[in-house]
Amino acid sequence: MNAVNDTPSPVRLKAVAAPGQPEPSPELETLYRGFERELLVPLWTEIGDLMPMHPTSRASPHIWRWKNLVALAEQAGRIVPVGRGGERRAIALANPSLGGKPYATPTLWAAIQYLMPGENAPEHRHTQHAFRFVVEGEGVWTVVNGDPVRMSRGDFLPQSAWNWHSHHNAASAPMAWIDGLDIPFSYYTESQFFEFGREGSGASDRSTPQHSRSERLWGYPGLRPVSQLDAQSATPLLAYRWVDTDRALREQLALEAEGHAVTLSPGHAAVRFTNPTTGGDVLPTIRAEMHRIRRGAGSRARREVGSSVYQVFDGVGTVTVGERTWAVGRGDMFVVPSWTPFTAAADAGGTDLDLFRFSDSPIFEALHAHRVLVEEAPGGTT
Amino acid sequence: MNAVNDTPSPVRLKAVAAPGQPEPSPELETLYRGFERELLVPLWTEIGDLMPMHPTSRASPHIWRWKNLVALAEQAGRIVPVGRGGERRAIALANPSLGGKPYATPTLWAAIQYLMPGENAPEHRHTQHAFRFVVEGEGVWTVVNGDPVRMSRGDFLPQSAWNWHSHHNAASAPMAWIDGLDIPFSYYTESQFFEFGREGSGASDRSTPQHSRSERLWGYPGLRPVSQLDAQSATPLLAYRWVDTDRALREQLALEAEGHAVTLSPGHAAVRFTNPTTGGDVLPTIRAEMHRIRRGAGSRARREVGSSVYQVFDGVGTVTVGERTWAVGRGDMFVVPSWTPFTAAADAGGTDLDLFRFSDSPIFEALHAHRVLVEEAPGGTT
Amino acid sequence: MNAVNDTPSPVRLKAVAAPGQPEPSPELETLYRGFERELLVPLWTEIGDLMPMHPTSRASPHIWRWKNLVALAEQAGRIVPVGRGGERRAIALANPSLGGKPYATPTLWAAIQYLMPGENAPEHRHTQHAFRFVVEGEGVWTVVNGDPVRMSRGDFLPQSAWNWHSHHNAASAPMAWIDGLDIPFSYYTESQFFEFGREGSGASDRSTPQHSRSERLWGYPGLRPVSQLDAQSATPLLAYRWVDTDRALREQLALEAEGHAVTLSPGHAAVRFTNPTTGGDVLPTIRAEMHRIRRGAGSRARREVGSSVYQVFDGVGTVTVGERTWAVGRGDMFVVPSWTPFTAAADAGGTDLDLFRFSDSPIFEALHAHRVLVEEAPGGTT
Amino acid sequence: MNAVNDTPSPVRLKAVAAPGQPEPSPELETLYRGFERELLVPLWTEIGDLMPMHPTSRASPHIWRWKNLVALAEQAGRIVPVGRGGERRAIALANPSLGGKPYATPTLWAAIQYLMPGENAPEHRHTQHAFRFVVEGEGVWTVVNGDPVRMSRGDFLPQSAWNWHSHHNAASAPMAWIDGLDIPFSYYTESQFFEFGREGSGASDRSTPQHSRSERLWGYPGLRPVSQLDAQSATPLLAYRWVDTDRALREQLALEAEGHAVTLSPGHAAVRFTNPTTGGDVLPTIRAEMHRIRRGAGSRARREVGSSVYQVFDGVGTVTVGERTWAVGRGDMFVVPSWTPFTAAADAGGTDLDLFRFSDSPIFEALHAHRVLVEEAPGGTT
Repeated sequence: MNAVNDTPSPVRLKAVAAPGQPEPSPELETLYRGFERELLVPLWTEIGDLMPMHPTSRASPHIWRWKNLVALAEQAGRIVPVGRGGERRAIALANPSLGGKPYATPTLWAAIQYLMPGENAPEHRHTQHAFRFVVEGEGVWTVVNGDPVRMSRGDFLPQSAWNWHSHHNAASAPMAWIDGLDIPFSYYTESQFFEFGREGSGASDRSTPQHSRSERLWGYPGLRPVSQLDAQSATPLLAYRWVDTDRALREQLALEAEGHAVTLSPGHAAVRFTNPTTGGDVLPTIRAEMHRIRRGAGSRARREVGSSVYQVFDGVGTVTVGERTWAVGRGDMFVVPSWTPFTAAADAGGTDLDLFRFSDSPIFEALHAHRVLVEEAPGGTT
Repeated sequence: MNAVNDTPSPVRLKAVAAPGQPEPSPELETLYRGFERELLVPLWTEIGDLMPMHPTSRASPHIWRWKNLVALAEQAGRIVPVGRGGERRAIALANPSLGGKPYATPTLWAAIQYLMPGENAPEHRHTQHAFRFVVEGEGVWTVVNGDPVRMSRGDFLPQSAWNWHSHHNAASAPMAWIDGLDIPFSYYTESQFFEFGREGSGASDRSTPQHSRSERLWGYPGLRPVSQLDAQSATPLLAYRWVDTDRALREQLALEAEGHAVTLSPGHAAVRFTNPTTGGDVLPTIRAEMHRIRRGAGSRARREVGSSVYQVFDGVGTVTVGERTWAVGRGDMFVVPSWTPFTAAADAGGTDLDLFRFSDSPIFEALHAHRVLVEEAPGGTT
Repeated sequence: MNAVNDTPSPVRLKAVAAPGQPEPSPELETLYRGFERELLVPLWTEIGDLMPMHPTSRASPHIWRWKNLVALAEQAGRIVPVGRGGERRAIALANPSLGGKPYATPTLWAAIQYLMPGENAPEHRHTQHAFRFVVEGEGVWTVVNGDPVRMSRGDFLPQSAWNWHSHHNAASAPMAWIDGLDIPFSYYTESQFFEFGREGSGASDRSTPQHSRSERLWGYPGLRPVSQLDAQSATPLLAYRWVDTDRALREQLALEAEGHAVTLSPGHAAVRFTNPTTGGDVLPTIRAEMHRIRRGAGSRARREVGSSVYQVFDGVGTVTVGERTWAVGRGDMFVVPSWTPFTAAADAGGTDLDLFRFSDSPIFEALHAHRVLVEEAPGGTT
Repeated sequence: MNAVNDTPSPVRLKAVAAPGQPEPSPELETLYRGFERELLVPLWTEIGDLMPMHPTSRASPHIWRWKNLVALAEQAGRIVPVGRGGERRAIALANPSLGGKPYATPTLWAAIQYLMPGENAPEHRHTQHAFRFVVEGEGVWTVVNGDPVRMSRGDFLPQSAWNWHSHHNAASAPMAWIDGLDIPFSYYTESQFFEFGREGSGASDRSTPQHSRSERLWGYPGLRPVSQLDAQSATPLLAYRWVDTDRALREQLALEAEGHAVTLSPGHAAVRFTNPTTGGDVLPTIRAEMHRIRRGAGSRARREVGSSVYQVFDGVGTVTVGERTWAVGRGDMFVVPSWTPFTAAADAGGTDLDLFRFSDSPIFEALHAHRVLVEEAPGGTT
């Protein structure tokens, strides 16, 4: 009667002699066959994996070198066209422990995107939240609901759910940047919608203004247009410019030097990109921050529920993720899996180390499942 | 230098001639080998799967018959002991399309739990949210932070994160009930913590009071103890009794008959179990409701982001989940995958059809990703 | 040019020789005349009164004896009709220090209302929030948006802004109860709207159901109708019945006796009437609570920003408000001005002392201006 | 027994023959004497005043001319010292209908403050929320919790509850500015606390930095220091600079000219000063905004629950408040009482008209009592 039961059951159970497990016996085998037939799995064989003492990520710490990413993106630029169907020339980080899937972490997508001069990535919209971050280069405008937004080095450009968007390269050189999205989370939770843009829509606007309309409306500290008072679950500000981010980090370190406790730990400044209509995270599922570690200083070791992806924006230093340690430089990208200890230190002989970070933390905060553990002693290199 | 690259890459890419895909060529093959080597995956080969027009669930509609569940639980009761390590005699529904994993849906765990007379399931705590629901029987007390809570037919018993709990059967007959948890979601998002209970702790309380302390403190409509004003992300009320649930549903149908618009659609009453300190869902990740469909009536077809598990509490009727239709009766459990249309109808010749439902909807509401589509025309059987 | 300046200025300033004040001189007199002419007042003459070290209320502690209130209400019942224009036979407490205004405290209105058999108080609605509390008697139904709500001893009946309402006495005896409203606050802040009811509207419903529709929909612990999920700034539950309130208080004292810390202090139980859709106060501007002090016990001394009105529901005891102490019994009403210390004690030889309280605390909590100071040592009489 | 009753009652009641009033009679007189003796006031004699159909303010529309304010402040500067006790050389607007009290409106305080070169207004703190706004001049620093904040033309400087603050004039010329506070509201609701500063505290910091520490930490669009994530009920940003405000208004009008709907009505731009940690009002009880009306344009007529105070920052125009109309220019201050229609228009031959506005609107929004009525047709002068 239950058609599925005619097909082989995907459930496979094996009685084993082990602590906490029932003694293997013919009766147990019979029971397990019954479970398989009825599509059932007991807790007692799974609990160790499913309910561990603390998160033990399936993802691995891993690093992708910027020069390799750019080289392959350039290669793709020559032979892979951009257009409707493929939609974007975006190449995603595939965590080595996640089965070859384009997932940097179980929840986060991170990709390098690449546009040749004159190219246009066609308009579409989707419920996945996205952002762009520019580690180098310029010349591309992303057009969001008809508002062209310039993309330049150091800029953070959020792109929240269900906004129409396209990108076009108005320069004479190719441009690469990174995209971050919650694609794996949306895929896993089966909550995603997508629509192709209409031809001839606002996406065909190829103008290249210095400042987007969103910046002209929203880009002032603490000022809100009185015509825009509706609640907004994601930021209406489409560009967070490097000039501001850099100044904010510089001032934090200067204030620290003047004796004020405004850094996360000595020599470790950080700003979070926020939604000016709430003061909370810039996107409902994605946190984005820029960290600056003063040359010779280091961050405190930190464990956190949820995963992060980092890109080195500038400087040279050393990062440690769980049992992996890497020397890093501009553009390098690495992942910090859930509850894996992380520290970063800036070389004493170099410049400050600037790290762009994004994570899935807002998910856990919204669900009251967030936990952070920060070690007291800082891990500086001096 | 990058040790992982010495092992075979999990990434496997294949150039195919298809709309939206780059033309197969030796250069493309070279590019794809480079992607594999560097652990990269392009968007253009994955977008159709990862970013569909609307959610298309990996889970299947499926039904588990109560008589089969109980028979196997009884069999397990005879040969599988309950104790530290295995922790619980709980047997989980494994959706036929989810690879044999104990997942009713991608995010939800649903199991039948079974305790023999005199047995005690040992104390532990975990960050996964849980509840128990009793479709028949009585005699077990669940002890939450030292507060023994009676479990009887029709009762809904939430068990939020990080509370110590154990269960003991004080009756002379075995008892079965169902457990619902967010185990798959916690596992996927890697956010779970677990601790074994201490021996000799409050869990050893084997008393069997008619009313838990939580009910004596919180079990009154709209009354809050002034000593308990702290914010609580999950309900402090540990038992929602059938007498109340039944009366609330009966009154909705009576009010409807008197001409008041208080049902979801004609003949379809429903109550949601809520956290009295917020009015919101009883648990941060799990919604729980009881629905009553008047005999001869039917619900409107509904699609919703996220998945649900139902158990028939009473009555007989017909449910349709996507392309599957089943006649259902007491205790039968079935799943409604994300964005799959669902309707239920009560047999005209029977009694009202009572359906207990739980879902992952609070996750999507918290993240502003919820969508519901309800058809105008009701699908009654009369 | 400024017409007002032709009329005598209401500003009157006097130069006085005092610490913190400028030296009296002809120049100062000239300045003060200029201030008066231009409608200006300096801070330095007013600061002591306007900006005290802590709140020093203009209101006085005062008590109104129930037997006197009832006697005058009966007298009014004989000679003052109830109808359109006067609207209600309500007689308000006028704090002796508030200039003869019908203000129990600067923000709160408290009145005895009285209806003769067969009388009907006509339908209207207003933005002032209101409630009724019944210290004795029965027989009146308050009709809220067409929903008749029975009023009986011990019941608390909230009536939030802008709901149509009328009252009718269906019994053969007169009935008195108390009304609480935020009339003075609304008057002061100039935020009030009012409308007369339409003739022949739902207000003409003279039915006398045991349970209101609101109770049938909302009167269950933790259960919310799925058809009623909209946000509600005030409670949709129109009656909080004594049977529940009494049981909740009794159980708190019983739990205390069993060793659980659920009372405010030994022998002092309390419940707050809350909005089941938020867990917060029942009305946006009015907090309502019932307190029970075990015979022989007393409350801790408490100071709080904002004012309260109490009515003794049952028992005999002693209350101290600032420098006033009164022996109190059923029905007596008294006020506790802002930041005035308050203690209550139940006579050792009597029954428990039940005190109904309402206050303006939600205003201060909403504006982040709330402060409470509770003394450690309880003030029991034993 | 009730001591108060020995003193003359403040209650005075008079029986009058009027609609809605009981017929005068000896019995009624007896009843009223009883009410007076027992400190009671019936609703029926008061309802028309207390519960009007809509707010009818006790305050009057009124204007204070800047040149008169400055002249009197200068005069005070010569003869009234600034120091402990008087605390501030602040001269408050006294609404002509509010009995000579220093209340611009029933809830708001507005004053001109004046400091001579070298003077220091001593440190104190209070729970009243405050701000400063500078219509002209410079040279004063306000020191907030030890952080000196420069005050210059066009700057808005919030000063939320319970922060230590002082002001010192570091220039060689006197300086005037305006203060706004919720003193009347705090006084009325009896919720205020005050403390004198300690000698030798941070208030003695007479440094004159160009940028306060608060600006260096918080003064960036959408960037939040990761070290400052605690919830904040009022803004941590202590200066909103004119350069930003002016640019935001200019861009709104430019965007309008480009065809985008970002103004309140044609030619009417406005920004609200907000708390960057919430996106909400800058202070819990005070809203502050800057409006710009393009020359020749006018605002729509608007009625709103609650009161506002305006100061003309620049330009010339005409404002209408209820039945009063005034030609206005720089520095002029006027009040808009609750629910009184307001329009403003900029002279066609002049420059744009910039209006600084503050109001008590957050009180009503927090309490769900806010109402606004905006007329459709704009009231331009062209």
